[in-house]
Amino acid sequence: MEFTAAPLEKLIEQFEKMPGIGRKTAQRMAFYVLGLPQEEGLAMAQAITDACVKIKKCTLCCNLTEQTYCPICSHPKRDRSLVCVVENAEDLMAIEKTDEFKGTYHVLHGVISPLEGVGPEDLTVKELLARIEPDNVREVIMATNSDIEGEATAMYLSRLLKPMGVKVSRLAYGLPVGSDLQYADSVTLTRAIEGRKDL
Amino acid sequence: MEFTAAPLEKLIEQFEKMPGIGRKTAQRMAFYVLGLPQEEGLAMAQAITDACVKIKKCTLCCNLTEQTYCPICSHPKRDRSLVCVVENAEDLMAIEKTDEFKGTYHVLHGVISPLEGVGPEDLTVKELLARIEPDNVREVIMATNSDIEGEATAMYLSRLLKPMGVKVSRLAYGLPVGSDLQYADSVTLTRAIEGRKDL
Repeated sequence: MEFTAAPLEKLIEQFEKMPGIGRKTAQRMAFYVLGLPQEEGLAMAQAITDACVKIKKCTLCCNLTEQTYCPICSHPKRDRSLVCVVENAEDLMAIEKTDEFKGTYHVLHGVISPLEGVGPEDLTVKELLARIEPDNVREVIMATNSDIEGEATAMYLSRLLKPMGVKVSRLAYGLPVGSDLQYADSVTLTRAIEGRKDL
Repeated sequence: MEFTAAPLEKLIEQFEKMPGIGRKTAQRMAFYVLGLPQEEGLAMAQAITDACVKIKKCTLCCNLTEQTYCPICSHPKRDRSLVCVVENAEDLMAIEKTDEFKGTYHVLHGVISPLEGVGPEDLTVKELLARIEPDNVREVIMATNSDIEGEATAMYLSRLLKPMGVKVSRLAYGLPVGSDLQYADSVTLTRAIEGRKDL
């Protein structure tokens, strides 16, 4: 578009690439940035630079952190012998928000997906296996998503872990708390019946 | 949140400030940036820096540009004696997209709004009045929004411009093209009847 200044157009394009951001939102965001006092705009640029440069993977659990070990792995009260395997750092944040889990995590940074050419070697499987012995891991909880890729990844990892004498568990499936039974989908309902518990 | 790396949290906060972006979207955007190859992430930071540093107001029409004069003002075929007054650069883009208007623009960068403490001196009114004589402006089209502030601003400007011998016009109000009459609001319908044209 000839009538837009080149740096503005470039900024809109950059924002537009992000997930969930369409042309209109990207445009609104770009104009917001332009409307900021210059130092605030530059602070945003700096925040992106910092995030790109400073954040790396935790040596132990591969969570995103600026230190060698992430705050969870380096926390003295977290149980290192209990490991929760998640697909990405966002899933970790979701579990961490419950404030219930006192073990540590392992972030795979993806799932096995032959269709997208992602194999176990692209994930942090090696790092997971390497922690089992030194940390005396007794149980690994598979918290991958319940889609095909997530299930396959959980299955794959459990086959590697079980021979090492590790208990492998999976998050429970069932009705979401507060949901109405009549609106539950049949797969979830089937799982809820299968996984019923004694009262 | 203790479990998030500080630069990541900072980035999420920066994104969250933008219009139309909630916590969840900001988080997704931040993780997207982290997932980018480092040079692409830095390119985004650079785009923001460039936009903040390089873009300024066009000397003539106050549109956002990197040059002294924006592409529209410096275009030899644009009619400088016909000026369309808009509230902001986004409105300019919307009109420019129609590819119909061959005059030039004047970007106010706001509207008169006593409630928010915005007076004519905060807008580019002075710059507008200064162009009238040198550019032999014959007509000014008010394309401010049809809310109270937009109407008041148009009225204010027209009172300044008319004594200078300039024709002042306003965008037509009526039914949007392709709309269904029964769903039109009564104000729009009233305006459409008032502004009816001979067939």
